[in-house]
Amino acid sequence: MTRSLNRHLLDNIAIVLMHPKYPENIGAAARAAWNMGLTRIIIVADEYPNHERMAKMATHKAAPLLDSMEFHQDLGEALKPFSQIVATTARKGRQRILQHTPRDVMETILPLLPENQVAFLFGPEDSGLTNDDLKYCQLISAVPTADFSSLNLAQAVGIHCYEIYQAVVYSGKKVRSAPAIASSFELEGMYEHLENALLQVDFLQEKSHSYYMRNIRQLLSRIRLNSKEANIIRGICRQFLWHTSPSGNSSKRGGKKPQQ
Amino acid sequence: MTRSLNRHLLDNIAIVLMHPKYPENIGAAARAAWNMGLTRIIIVADEYPNHERMAKMATHKAAPLLDSMEFHQDLGEALKPFSQIVATTARKGRQRILQHTPRDVMETILPLLPENQVAFLFGPEDSGLTNDDLKYCQLISAVPTADFSSLNLAQAVGIHCYEIYQAVVYSGKKVRSAPAIASSFELEGMYEHLENALLQVDFLQEKSHSYYMRNIRQLLSRIRLNSKEANIIRGICRQFLWHTSPSGNSSKRGGKKPQQ
Repeated sequence: MTRSLNRHLLDNIAIVLMHPKYPENIGAAARAAWNMGLTRIIIVADEYPNHERMAKMATHKAAPLLDSMEFHQDLGEALKPFSQIVATTARKGRQRILQHTPRDVMETILPLLPENQVAFLFGPEDSGLTNDDLKYCQLISAVPTADFSSLNLAQAVGIHCYEIYQAVVYSGKKVRSAPAIASSFELEGMYEHLENALLQVDFLQEKSHSYYMRNIRQLLSRIRLNSKEANIIRGICRQFLWHTSPSGNSSKRGGKKPQQ
Repeated sequence: MTRSLNRHLLDNIAIVLMHPKYPENIGAAARAAWNMGLTRIIIVADEYPNHERMAKMATHKAAPLLDSMEFHQDLGEALKPFSQIVATTARKGRQRILQHTPRDVMETILPLLPENQVAFLFGPEDSGLTNDDLKYCQLISAVPTADFSSLNLAQAVGIHCYEIYQAVVYSGKKVRSAPAIASSFELEGMYEHLENALLQVDFLQEKSHSYYMRNIRQLLSRIRLNSKEANIIRGICRQFLWHTSPSGNSSKRGGKKPQQ
Protein backbone atom coordinates (compact mmCIF):
# COMPACT_ATOMS: atom_id res chain seq x y z
CA MET A 1 0.00 0.00 0.00
CA THR A 2 1.47 3.33 -1.04
CA ARG A 3 -0.51 5.02 1.70
CA SER A 4 1.60 3.46 4.42
CA LEU A 5 4.70 4.72 2.62
CA ASN A 6 5.09 8.00 4.50
CA ARG A 7 3.13 7.22 7.62
CA HIS A 8 6.23 7.21 9.83
CA LEU A 9 6.90 10.83 8.78
CA LEU A 10 3.95 11.94 10.89
CA ASP A 11 6.12 11.15 13.93
CA ASN A 12 8.35 14.08 12.96
CA ILE A 13 5.50 16.56 13.35
CA ALA A 14 4.29 18.16 16.58
CA ILE A 15 1.30 20.35 17.33
CA VAL A 16 2.40 23.08 19.76
CA LEU A 17 -0.27 25.08 21.60
CA MET A 18 0.99 28.32 23.10
CA HIS A 19 -0.91 29.47 26.20
CA PRO A 20 -4.26 27.89 25.32
CA LYS A 21 -6.97 29.42 27.53
CA TYR A 22 -9.46 26.56 27.61
CA PRO A 23 -8.41 22.97 28.40
CA GLU A 24 -11.41 21.82 26.32
CA ASN A 25 -9.67 23.21 23.25
CA ILE A 26 -6.55 21.17 24.01
CA GLY A 27 -8.78 18.10 24.15
CA ALA A 28 -10.48 18.95 20.87
CA ALA A 29 -7.09 19.64 19.25
CA ALA A 30 -5.79 16.28 20.52
CA ARG A 31 -8.77 14.51 19.01
CA ALA A 32 -8.26 16.29 15.67
CA ALA A 33 -4.56 15.36 15.71
CA TRP A 34 -5.32 11.76 16.59
CA ASN A 35 -7.84 11.51 13.74
CA MET A 36 -5.06 12.45 11.35
CA GLY A 37 -2.44 10.09 12.76
CA LEU A 38 -0.47 12.75 14.66
CA THR A 39 0.59 11.85 18.17
CA ARG A 40 2.77 14.67 19.48
CA ILE A 41 1.05 17.48 21.37
CA ILE A 42 3.14 20.08 23.18
CA ILE A 43 1.59 22.60 25.57
CA VAL A 44 3.35 25.81 26.58
CA ALA A 45 1.63 27.36 29.61
CA ASP A 46 2.29 28.69 33.09
CA GLU A 47 0.38 25.86 34.72
CA TYR A 48 -0.44 22.31 33.69
CA PRO A 49 -3.96 22.37 32.22
CA ASN A 50 -6.89 20.67 33.94
CA HIS A 51 -6.90 17.04 32.86
CA GLU A 52 -10.59 16.36 33.26
CA ARG A 53 -11.58 19.31 31.08
CA MET A 54 -9.09 18.24 28.39
CA ALA A 55 -10.19 14.60 28.48
CA LYS A 56 -13.87 15.51 28.06
CA MET A 57 -13.26 16.85 24.55
CA ALA A 58 -10.49 14.43 23.57
CA THR A 59 -12.80 11.42 24.09
CA HIS A 60 -11.27 8.13 25.17
CA LYS A 61 -9.69 7.47 21.78
CA ALA A 62 -7.33 10.46 21.90
CA ALA A 63 -6.71 10.11 25.65
CA PRO A 64 -3.26 8.51 25.13
CA LEU A 65 -2.15 11.75 23.41
CA LEU A 66 -2.96 13.69 26.57
CA ASP A 67 -0.98 11.22 28.67
CA SER A 68 2.09 11.54 26.48
CA MET A 69 1.64 15.30 25.99
CA GLU A 70 4.78 17.40 26.56
CA PHE A 71 4.51 20.39 28.88
CA HIS A 72 6.79 23.46 28.93
CA GLN A 73 6.65 26.86 30.54
CA ASP A 74 8.95 28.45 27.97
CA LEU A 75 8.29 28.48 24.22
CA GLY A 76 12.01 28.54 23.32
CA GLU A 77 12.55 25.38 25.39
CA ALA A 78 9.57 23.67 23.80
CA LEU A 79 10.79 24.40 20.28
CA LYS A 80 14.45 23.39 20.75
CA PRO A 81 14.34 20.11 18.79
CA PHE A 82 12.53 21.57 15.78
CA SER A 83 14.24 22.66 12.58
CA GLN A 84 11.18 24.13 10.95
CA ILE A 85 8.54 25.97 12.88
CA VAL A 86 5.28 26.95 11.21
CA ALA A 87 3.34 29.74 12.89
CA THR A 88 -0.39 29.69 12.30
CA THR A 89 -2.27 32.98 12.27
CA ALA A 90 -5.53 34.50 11.17
CA ARG A 91 -5.18 35.94 7.70
CA LYS A 92 -4.71 39.68 7.76
CA GLY A 93 -4.78 42.27 5.00
CA ARG A 94 -1.23 43.43 5.54
CA GLN A 95 1.53 41.51 7.26
CA ARG A 96 5.20 41.96 7.75
CA ILE A 97 5.88 38.34 6.90
CA LEU A 98 4.59 36.49 3.88
CA GLN A 99 1.65 34.23 4.68
CA HIS A 100 0.97 30.91 2.97
CA THR A 101 -2.04 28.63 2.86
CA PRO A 102 -1.80 25.36 4.82
CA ARG A 103 -1.70 23.54 1.47
CA ASP A 104 1.28 25.56 0.23
CA VAL A 105 3.04 25.15 3.57
CA MET A 106 2.79 21.38 3.22
CA GLU A 107 4.56 21.52 -0.14
CA THR A 108 7.48 23.26 1.54
CA ILE A 109 7.45 21.04 4.60
CA LEU A 110 7.08 17.65 2.92
CA PRO A 111 10.70 17.21 1.70
CA LEU A 112 12.00 18.31 5.10
CA LEU A 113 10.10 15.68 7.05
CA PRO A 114 12.41 12.67 6.58
CA GLU A 115 15.40 14.47 8.16
CA ASN A 116 13.86 17.19 10.33
CA GLN A 117 11.45 17.80 13.17
CA VAL A 118 8.63 20.18 12.26
CA ALA A 119 6.38 22.09 14.68
CA PHE A 120 3.03 23.72 13.95
CA LEU A 121 2.58 26.52 16.48
CA PHE A 122 -0.87 27.82 17.48
CA GLY A 123 -1.41 30.92 19.63
CA PRO A 124 -3.97 31.63 22.36
CA GLU A 125 -7.67 31.63 21.37
CA ASP A 126 -8.23 35.36 21.78
CA SER A 127 -4.97 37.09 20.91
CA GLY A 128 -2.97 34.77 18.66
CA LEU A 129 0.83 34.62 18.54
CA THR A 130 2.90 37.66 19.53
CA ASN A 131 5.85 39.04 17.59
CA ASP A 132 8.06 37.48 20.23
CA ASP A 133 6.53 34.05 19.53
CA LEU A 134 6.84 34.58 15.78
CA LYS A 135 10.59 35.11 15.95
CA TYR A 136 11.11 31.33 16.24
CA CYS A 137 9.13 30.63 13.08
CA GLN A 138 10.31 30.22 9.50
CA LEU A 139 6.91 29.96 7.86
CA ILE A 140 3.49 31.47 8.46
CA SER A 141 0.34 29.55 7.64
CA ALA A 142 -3.05 31.22 7.45
CA VAL A 143 -6.26 29.42 6.55
CA PRO A 144 -8.09 31.42 3.88
CA THR A 145 -11.41 32.56 5.35
CA ALA A 146 -14.20 34.88 4.29
CA ASP A 147 -13.60 38.53 5.20
CA PHE A 148 -10.48 37.66 7.18
CA SER A 149 -12.55 36.14 9.97
CA SER A 150 -10.76 33.95 12.47
CA LEU A 151 -11.31 30.27 13.09
CA ASN A 152 -11.57 28.86 16.57
CA LEU A 153 -8.50 27.06 17.86
CA ALA A 154 -9.78 23.51 17.42
CA GLN A 155 -10.91 24.24 13.85
CA ALA A 156 -7.54 25.77 12.96
CA VAL A 157 -5.74 22.71 14.37
CA GLY A 158 -8.23 20.43 12.61
CA ILE A 159 -7.72 21.97 9.18
CA HIS A 160 -3.93 21.91 9.53
CA CYS A 161 -3.93 18.27 10.66
CA TYR A 162 -6.20 17.44 7.72
CA GLU A 163 -3.79 19.09 5.25
CA ILE A 164 -0.83 17.33 6.90
CA TYR A 165 -2.52 13.94 6.57
CA GLN A 166 -3.56 14.64 2.97
CA ALA A 167 -0.04 15.64 1.94
CA VAL A 168 2.01 13.14 3.94
CA VAL A 169 -0.09 9.99 3.98
CA TYR A 170 -3.13 10.17 1.75
CA SER A 171 -1.46 11.45 -1.40
CA GLY A 172 0.72 8.33 -1.35
CA LYS A 173 3.46 10.36 -3.05
CA LYS A 174 7.08 9.39 -2.58
CA VAL A 175 8.81 12.15 -0.62
CA ARG A 176 12.03 13.52 -2.05
CA SER A 177 14.09 14.06 1.04
CA ALA A 178 15.86 17.38 1.68
CA PRO A 179 18.94 17.43 3.96
CA ALA A 180 18.81 18.09 7.70
CA ILE A 181 18.81 21.73 8.75
CA ALA A 182 19.83 23.34 12.03
CA SER A 183 17.45 22.92 14.96
CA SER A 184 15.82 25.79 16.83
CA PHE A 185 18.27 25.08 19.69
CA GLU A 186 21.25 25.56 17.37
CA LEU A 187 19.73 28.60 15.66
CA GLU A 188 18.81 30.35 18.90
CA GLY A 189 22.39 29.85 20.15
CA MET A 190 23.64 31.35 16.91
CA TYR A 191 21.27 34.32 17.08
CA GLU A 192 22.31 35.01 20.67
CA HIS A 193 25.94 34.95 19.62
CA LEU A 194 25.21 37.22 16.67
CA GLU A 195 23.25 39.61 18.87
CA ASN A 196 26.16 39.89 21.31
CA ALA A 197 28.62 40.58 18.51
CA LEU A 198 26.38 43.21 16.96
CA LEU A 199 25.82 44.84 20.32
CA GLN A 200 29.51 45.02 20.96
CA VAL A 201 30.21 46.89 17.72
CA ASP A 202 27.25 49.19 18.42
CA PHE A 203 25.34 48.00 15.37
CA LEU A 204 22.36 47.28 17.61
CA GLN A 205 21.15 50.26 19.57
CA GLU A 206 18.22 50.54 21.95
CA LYS A 207 15.74 51.98 19.46
CA SER A 208 16.48 49.76 16.48
CA HIS A 209 17.57 46.60 18.35
CA SER A 210 14.49 44.48 17.86
CA TYR A 211 13.88 45.87 14.35
CA TYR A 212 17.30 44.76 13.09
CA MET A 213 17.27 41.42 14.91
CA ARG A 214 13.88 40.60 13.43
CA ASN A 215 15.15 41.41 9.94
CA ILE A 216 18.34 39.43 10.42
CA ARG A 217 16.29 36.44 11.59
CA GLN A 218 14.02 36.67 8.58
CA LEU A 219 16.96 36.98 6.23
CA LEU A 220 18.88 34.04 7.72
CA SER A 221 15.80 31.84 8.02
CA ARG A 222 15.46 31.98 4.25
CA ILE A 223 18.85 30.26 3.80
CA ARG A 224 17.90 27.11 5.77
CA LEU A 225 21.27 26.87 7.49
CA ASN A 226 22.50 23.44 8.47
CA SER A 227 24.29 22.71 11.76
CA LYS A 228 27.75 23.20 10.27
CA GLU A 229 26.84 26.54 8.77
CA ALA A 230 25.27 27.77 12.01
CA ASN A 231 28.54 26.85 13.71
CA ILE A 232 30.58 28.75 11.11
CA ILE A 233 28.50 31.87 11.79
CA ARG A 234 29.02 31.37 15.52
CA GLY A 235 32.77 31.02 14.89
CA ILE A 236 32.79 34.34 13.05
CA CYS A 237 30.88 36.00 15.90
CA ARG A 238 33.34 34.55 18.41
CA GLN A 239 36.26 36.07 16.54
CA PHE A 240 34.59 39.46 16.27
CA LEU A 241 33.70 39.40 19.94
CA TRP A 242 37.24 38.48 20.88
CA HIS A 243 38.81 41.14 18.72
CA THR A 244 36.47 43.88 19.87
CA SER A 245 36.21 43.17 23.59
CA PRO A 246 38.55 44.94 26.01
CA SER A 247 39.97 41.59 27.14
CA GLY A 248 40.14 40.41 23.53
CA ASN A 249 42.07 43.49 22.52
CA SER A 250 44.47 43.03 25.39
CA SER A 251 45.01 39.37 24.65
CA LYS A 252 45.59 40.27 21.00
CA ARG A 253 48.76 41.83 22.38
CA GLY A 254 50.11 38.59 23.72
CA GLY A 255 47.04 36.44 24.63
CA LYS A 256 45.63 33.37 22.86
CA LYS A 257 43.13 33.45 20.03
CA PRO A 258 39.87 31.58 20.76
CA GLN A 259 39.43 28.25 19.02
CA GLN A 260 37.33 28.29 15.89
CA MET B 1 -10.03 40.85 -7.66
CA THR B 2 -10.42 37.36 -9.05
CA ARG B 3 -11.29 36.15 -5.57
CA SER B 4 -14.62 37.92 -5.59
CA LEU B 5 -15.41 36.24 -8.91
CA ASN B 6 -17.27 33.21 -7.55
CA ARG B 7 -18.26 34.50 -4.14
CA HIS B 8 -21.96 34.58 -5.05
CA LEU B 9 -21.82 30.84 -5.78
CA LEU B 10 -21.51 30.17 -2.05
CA ASP B 11 -25.17 31.22 -1.78
CA ASN B 12 -26.10 28.07 -3.72
CA ILE B 13 -24.64 25.82 -1.01
CA ALA B 14 -26.35 24.73 2.20
CA ILE B 15 -25.06 22.81 5.21
CA VAL B 16 -27.75 20.35 6.31
CA LEU B 17 -27.49 18.76 9.75
CA MET B 18 -29.63 15.66 10.19
CA HIS B 19 -30.76 15.03 13.78
CA PRO B 20 -27.78 16.67 15.53
CA LYS B 21 -27.73 15.59 19.19
CA TYR B 22 -25.99 18.58 20.74
CA PRO B 23 -27.09 22.17 19.99
CA GLU B 24 -23.49 23.23 20.74
CA ASN B 25 -22.40 21.37 17.62
CA ILE B 26 -24.92 23.30 15.54
CA GLY B 27 -23.39 26.50 16.89
CA ALA B 28 -19.84 25.33 16.14
CA ALA B 29 -20.91 24.25 12.64
CA ALA B 30 -22.53 27.66 12.06
CA ARG B 31 -19.33 29.40 13.09
CA ALA B 32 -17.26 27.19 10.77
CA ALA B 33 -19.68 27.90 7.90
CA TRP B 34 -19.65 31.63 8.59
CA ASN B 35 -15.83 31.66 8.57
CA MET B 36 -15.93 30.26 5.06
CA GLY B 37 -18.59 32.62 3.73
CA LEU B 38 -21.44 30.10 3.84
CA THR B 39 -24.73 31.37 5.21
CA ARG B 40 -27.32 28.61 4.78
CA ILE B 41 -27.75 26.17 7.65
CA ILE B 42 -30.64 23.71 7.61
CA ILE B 43 -31.55 21.60 10.63
CA VAL B 44 -33.64 18.46 10.39
CA ALA B 45 -34.86 17.41 13.84
CA ASP B 46 -37.97 16.47 15.77
CA GLU B 47 -37.78 19.60 17.91
CA TYR B 48 -36.26 23.02 17.40
CA PRO B 49 -32.82 22.97 19.08
CA ASN B 50 -32.11 25.06 22.20
CA HIS B 51 -31.09 28.52 21.03
CA GLU B 52 -28.90 29.45 23.98
CA ARG B 53 -26.78 26.32 23.66
CA MET B 54 -26.34 26.87 19.92
CA ALA B 55 -25.49 30.57 20.33
CA LYS B 56 -22.80 29.83 22.92
CA MET B 57 -20.64 28.02 20.35
CA ALA B 58 -21.61 30.14 17.34
CA THR B 59 -20.29 33.33 19.02
CA HIS B 60 -21.95 36.63 18.16
CA LYS B 61 -20.41 36.75 14.69
CA ALA B 62 -22.20 33.67 13.38
CA ALA B 63 -25.40 34.46 15.32
CA PRO B 64 -27.22 35.77 12.20
CA LEU B 65 -26.84 32.29 10.65
CA LEU B 66 -28.77 30.82 13.56
CA ASP B 67 -31.51 33.41 13.15
CA SER B 68 -31.94 32.64 9.46
CA MET B 69 -31.48 28.88 9.94
CA GLU B 70 -34.11 26.70 8.25
CA PHE B 71 -35.83 24.05 10.33
CA HIS B 72 -37.54 20.89 9.05
CA GLN B 73 -38.87 17.73 10.63
CA ASP B 74 -38.53 15.69 7.45
CA LEU B 75 -35.31 15.24 5.48
CA GLY B 76 -37.06 14.84 2.13
CA GLU B 77 -38.82 18.20 2.68
CA ALA B 78 -35.55 19.86 3.64
CA LEU B 79 -33.77 18.63 0.53
CA LYS B 80 -36.50 19.46 -2.02
CA PRO B 81 -34.77 22.48 -3.63
CA PHE B 82 -31.41 20.76 -4.05
CA SER B 83 -30.21 19.15 -7.29
CA GLN B 84 -27.04 17.70 -5.88
CA ILE B 85 -26.84 16.27 -2.40
CA VAL B 86 -23.50 15.27 -0.93
CA ALA B 87 -23.62 12.84 1.98
CA THR B 88 -20.70 13.03 4.38
CA THR B 89 -19.61 9.88 6.17
CA ALA B 90 -16.74 8.44 8.10
CA ARG B 91 -14.42 6.56 5.78
CA LYS B 92 -15.01 2.83 5.90
CA GLY B 93 -13.07 -0.07 4.52
CA ARG B 94 -15.87 -1.39 2.33
CA GLN B 95 -18.87 0.59 1.15
CA ARG B 96 -21.69 -0.04 -1.21
CA ILE B 97 -21.31 3.40 -2.74
CA LEU B 98 -18.09 4.95 -3.97
CA GLN B 99 -16.61 7.47 -1.55
CA HIS B 100 -14.70 10.57 -2.57
CA THR B 101 -12.50 12.98 -0.67
CA PRO B 102 -13.94 16.47 -0.01
CA ARG B 103 -11.39 17.83 -2.50
CA ASP B 104 -12.54 15.50 -5.28
CA VAL B 105 -16.18 16.23 -4.46
CA MET B 106 -15.53 19.93 -4.97
CA GLU B 107 -14.21 19.27 -8.47
CA THR B 108 -17.49 17.58 -9.33
CA ILE B 109 -19.63 20.19 -7.60
CA LEU B 110 -17.95 23.35 -8.86
CA PRO B 111 -19.39 23.41 -12.41
CA LEU B 112 -22.87 22.66 -11.03
CA LEU B 113 -22.92 25.64 -8.66
CA PRO B 114 -23.94 28.40 -11.08
CA GLU B 115 -27.19 26.65 -12.05
CA ASN B 116 -27.95 24.33 -9.16
CA GLN B 117 -28.52 24.22 -5.43
CA VAL B 118 -26.11 21.92 -3.60
CA ALA B 119 -26.54 20.48 -0.10
CA PHE B 120 -23.86 18.94 2.13
CA LEU B 121 -25.61 16.53 4.48
CA PHE B 122 -24.15 15.56 7.87
CA GLY B 123 -25.59 12.80 10.07
CA PRO B 124 -25.96 12.58 13.85
CA GLU B 125 -22.77 12.67 15.95
CA ASP B 126 -22.94 9.07 17.10
CA SER B 127 -24.52 7.05 14.35
CA GLY B 128 -24.04 8.98 11.08
CA LEU B 129 -26.45 8.86 8.15
CA THR B 130 -28.74 5.87 7.64
CA ASN B 131 -29.33 4.08 4.35
CA ASP B 132 -32.68 5.83 4.21
CA ASP B 133 -30.94 9.23 4.46
CA LEU B 134 -28.38 8.21 1.85
CA LYS B 135 -31.03 7.48 -0.77
CA TYR B 136 -31.37 11.23 -1.45
CA CYS B 137 -27.65 11.65 -2.12
CA GLN B 138 -25.74 11.53 -5.39
CA LEU B 139 -22.23 11.79 -3.95
CA ILE B 140 -20.50 10.56 -0.82
CA SER B 141 -17.69 12.55 0.76
CA ALA B 142 -15.41 11.06 3.41
CA VAL B 143 -12.51 12.92 4.99
CA PRO B 144 -9.42 10.69 4.87
CA THR B 145 -8.39 9.93 8.45
CA ALA B 146 -5.89 7.65 10.14
CA ASP B 147 -7.17 4.15 10.74
CA PHE B 148 -10.66 5.05 9.58
CA SER B 149 -11.29 7.04 12.76
CA SER B 150 -14.23 9.43 12.77
CA LEU B 151 -14.11 13.20 13.13
CA ASN B 152 -16.46 15.03 15.40
CA LEU B 153 -19.35 16.79 13.71
CA ALA B 154 -17.98 20.34 13.94
CA GLN B 155 -14.59 19.23 12.54
CA ALA B 156 -16.24 17.41 9.64
CA VAL B 157 -18.33 20.51 8.84
CA GLY B 158 -15.23 22.71 9.26
CA ILE B 159 -13.09 20.71 6.83
CA HIS B 160 -15.85 20.59 4.23
CA CYS B 161 -16.50 24.35 4.49
CA TYR B 162 -12.75 24.92 4.18
CA GLU B 163 -12.57 22.85 0.97
CA ILE B 164 -15.67 24.62 -0.39
CA TYR B 165 -14.12 28.04 0.23
CA GLN B 166 -10.77 26.95 -1.25
CA ALA B 167 -12.38 25.63 -4.42
CA VAL B 168 -15.09 28.24 -4.98
CA VAL B 169 -13.55 31.48 -3.77
CA TYR B 170 -9.88 31.21 -2.92
CA SER B 171 -8.71 29.44 -6.07
CA GLY B 172 -10.03 32.42 -8.07
CA LYS B 173 -10.68 30.02 -10.96
CA LYS B 174 -13.36 30.83 -13.49
CA VAL B 175 -16.12 28.24 -13.16
CA ARG B 176 -17.29 26.50 -16.33
CA SER B 177 -20.99 26.24 -15.78
CA ALA B 178 -22.81 22.93 -16.27
CA PRO B 179 -26.55 22.97 -17.05
CA ALA B 180 -29.29 22.81 -14.43
CA ILE B 181 -30.29 19.33 -13.30
CA ALA B 182 -33.51 18.10 -11.72
CA SER B 183 -34.11 19.03 -8.09
CA SER B 184 -34.61 16.53 -5.29
CA PHE B 185 -38.32 17.45 -5.34
CA GLU B 186 -38.58 16.50 -9.02
CA LEU B 187 -36.49 13.36 -8.61
CA GLU B 188 -38.41 12.11 -5.58
CA GLY B 189 -41.67 12.56 -7.50
CA MET B 190 -40.17 10.58 -10.36
CA TYR B 191 -38.91 7.77 -8.09
CA GLU B 192 -42.33 7.49 -6.46
CA HIS B 193 -43.95 7.21 -9.85
CA LEU B 194 -41.39 4.63 -10.93
CA GLU B 195 -41.88 2.66 -7.73
CA ASN B 196 -45.63 2.54 -8.26
CA ALA B 197 -45.23 1.35 -11.82
CA LEU B 198 -42.73 -1.34 -10.84
CA LEU B 199 -44.98 -2.49 -8.00
CA GLN B 200 -47.91 -2.81 -10.32
CA VAL B 201 -46.07 -5.12 -12.73
CA ASP B 202 -44.74 -7.13 -9.75
CA PHE B 203 -41.13 -6.25 -10.47
CA LEU B 204 -40.81 -5.06 -6.88
CA GLN B 205 -41.64 -7.67 -4.32
CA GLU B 206 -41.51 -7.47 -0.55
CA LYS B 207 -38.09 -9.06 -0.14
CA SER B 208 -36.22 -7.29 -2.92
CA HIS B 209 -38.16 -4.01 -2.91
CA SER B 210 -35.59 -1.77 -1.20
CA TYR B 211 -32.66 -3.56 -2.87
CA TYR B 212 -33.93 -2.83 -6.37
CA MET B 213 -35.09 0.71 -5.60
CA ARG B 214 -31.64 1.55 -4.15
CA ASN B 215 -29.94 0.21 -7.25
CA ILE B 216 -32.30 2.04 -9.59
CA ARG B 217 -31.65 5.28 -7.69
CA GLN B 218 -27.89 4.79 -7.94
CA LEU B 219 -28.10 4.01 -11.61
CA LEU B 220 -30.32 6.99 -12.44
CA SER B 221 -28.37 9.41 -10.24
CA ARG B 222 -25.32 8.81 -12.42
CA ILE B 223 -27.13 10.24 -15.46
CA ARG B 224 -27.80 13.66 -13.89
CA LEU B 225 -31.30 13.92 -15.29
CA ASN B 226 -32.64 17.38 -16.02
CA SER B 227 -36.23 18.41 -15.32
CA LYS B 228 -37.46 17.55 -18.81
CA GLU B 229 -35.91 14.07 -18.68
CA ALA B 230 -37.38 13.39 -15.24
CA ASN B 231 -40.78 14.31 -16.70
CA ILE B 232 -40.29 11.99 -19.65
CA ILE B 233 -39.61 9.10 -17.26
CA ARG B 234 -42.72 10.04 -15.29
CA GLY B 235 -44.68 10.07 -18.55
CA ILE B 236 -43.53 6.54 -19.32
CA CYS B 237 -44.48 5.39 -15.81
CA ARG B 238 -47.91 7.00 -16.20
CA GLN B 239 -48.54 5.07 -19.39
CA PHE B 240 -47.44 1.78 -17.88
CA LEU B 241 -49.60 2.37 -14.83
CA TRP B 242 -52.59 3.20 -16.98
CA HIS B 243 -52.17 0.18 -19.19
CA THR B 244 -51.64 -2.25 -16.35
CA SER B 245 -54.20 -1.07 -13.80
CA PRO B 246 -57.66 -2.65 -13.72
CA SER B 247 -59.27 0.73 -14.50
CA GLY B 248 -56.65 1.41 -17.16
CA ASN B 249 -57.35 -1.94 -18.76
CA SER B 250 -61.02 -1.27 -18.72
CA SER B 251 -60.57 2.20 -20.19
CA LYS B 252 -58.27 0.73 -22.84
CA ARG B 253 -61.45 -0.89 -24.05
CA GLY B 254 -63.14 2.42 -24.70
CA GLY B 255 -61.74 4.89 -22.14
CA LYS B 256 -59.34 7.77 -22.66
CA LYS B 257 -55.56 7.58 -22.62
CA PRO B 258 -53.89 9.73 -20.00
CA GLN B 259 -52.06 12.80 -21.26
CA GLN B 260 -48.33 12.49 -21.66
